[in-house]
Amino acid sequence: MINKLVIIGVGLIGGSFALALREAGLVREVAGVGRSAENLSAALGMYVIDTSVTDPAQAVQGADLVLLAVPVGQLDAIMAAIAPYLGANTVVTDVGSTKQDIVALARRHFGTHFPRFVPGHPIAGAEKSGVKAARGDLFRERNVILTPLAETDAAAISLVAQLWQGCGAKVSQMHPAGHDALFAAVSHLPHVLAFSLVDYIASQANAEQLFGFAASGFRDFTRIAGSSPEMWRDICLANRDALLQQLGAYEQELAQIKALIAAGDGAGLEALFGRARDARQKYLKNP
Amino acid sequence: MINKLVIIGVGLIGGSFALALREAGLVREVAGVGRSAENLSAALGMYVIDTSVTDPAQAVQGADLVLLAVPVGQLDAIMAAIAPYLGANTVVTDVGSTKQDIVALARRHFGTHFPRFVPGHPIAGAEKSGVKAARGDLFRERNVILTPLAETDAAAISLVAQLWQGCGAKVSQMHPAGHDALFAAVSHLPHVLAFSLVDYIASQANAEQLFGFAASGFRDFTRIAGSSPEMWRDICLANRDALLQQLGAYEQELAQIKALIAAGDGAGLEALFGRARDARQKYLKNP
Repeated sequence: MINKLVIIGVGLIGGSFALALREAGLVREVAGVGRSAENLSAALGMYVIDTSVTDPAQAVQGADLVLLAVPVGQLDAIMAAIAPYLGANTVVTDVGSTKQDIVALARRHFGTHFPRFVPGHPIAGAEKSGVKAARGDLFRERNVILTPLAETDAAAISLVAQLWQGCGAKVSQMHPAGHDALFAAVSHLPHVLAFSLVDYIASQANAEQLFGFAASGFRDFTRIAGSSPEMWRDICLANRDALLQQLGAYEQELAQIKALIAAGDGAGLEALFGRARDARQKYLKNP
Repeated sequence: MINKLVIIGVGLIGGSFALALREAGLVREVAGVGRSAENLSAALGMYVIDTSVTDPAQAVQGADLVLLAVPVGQLDAIMAAIAPYLGANTVVTDVGSTKQDIVALARRHFGTHFPRFVPGHPIAGAEKSGVKAARGDLFRERNVILTPLAETDAAAISLVAQLWQGCGAKVSQMHPAGHDALFAAVSHLPHVLAFSLVDYIASQANAEQLFGFAASGFRDFTRIAGSSPEMWRDICLANRDALLQQLGAYEQELAQIKALIAAGDGAGLEALFGRARDARQKYLKNP
């Protein structure tokens, strides 16, 4: 049980974290900080937060835990604003999709408080946004990855891990660089491929006809191209090196399949497609 | 109303076509031809077909319409087997995903009967298979494309179009080459990209970890990589030239996005992602 939780950015992720901890009886008081008065008012109405505060520096005073759940592009300013007001025992964590860049920011802004910053990434709920979509069960059975550094305080890590587990999440730890390489492959690369395909089709003279005859498979394949351009711009820039490496490796895979098609190598194509289908059935069939 | 319909290949597509025409009261008798006795028996039990026949040459005698709904790889043998037994007024149509190759096959096998072959492609239901998945409403509001040639008989085209409309489908016509170019872009290319991505991830030393942390977006993106390797081998080979052209164009699009990422061009990335999201919302948001 913690006494005071501060959610900076009361959207889908921040709001669901607060709701889940409330439902689990793990938090006494929740203060919400945000830019949109309308969103904060909705959060108050949904009992996601108990109080709404405009100034993050004021909000964090006396907090046991501060959850940073704003878009990554705002973290620099938010960290600078709250750093001078963090109490000695206040733990700070975040929910960003990339970790090395956020660790670097935190190291710069938090100084001696840096050991009490626990970098985190819940793998959940990118397709909706805003507090109205928040749900207390959003993180149940979902993965949450923490990427602490050698100097991160063990008690701070333990607190954050326990709270996520209280939300029903499966918590694991890895190094920030390992995290970023992993998500470059299974998240950032597919997003870039989907955005590229839709942009490519949209740029054709007969785009309307092409989209008009696209079937449900195309719709599934391109669903992630409906994601926020701003968020994905930030992710691509933050994880540039790992993403470029993945793109290069994928280009080689594409060149290989293109060579099989050009050579009319039916056995090679069937083997490649079979490996893919089998891997998908093995690892992804039952969510 | 037609008197005798022959379905060669009583699976999801062939079975659903028969069911839909029955429900619309547009067919008196349906004969089914297939290799699996178990599947034909299920089709009889579901009243999808009235009689099951082993020999396609025998089945097509006296038919008003023959629907070829077997995998494309079997069409060569089936066309050769039925060609000598087609009555002067029998119309033949198919459901293959590529059209130029099937038109060439039909031209070779059907000879003077070729004008009564109407090439067709219903855009529906790739994710399940077998007659047990057949439904009378499978084609409702779905696109069916006919790709007749200059010499194709107008009455034959009209019959096939009316029957598909009787199934609730939206029927349109285009040239076989135009069809194959269109589906190379919106179907064959995305399938190849999805198969490639899953094969690439599966080939990594930490594949299990990578798939383990993949989120729902990855699952959507790769759903089409669960499709039949044999079917997609045949499609890639049949539509080789158009697909290679699309792959080349897509590689250029990828090179462009890679250059934006390498240059740290946030504005360029956001513009590209925004174009993709807007196109998806405009054309694909409401199925």
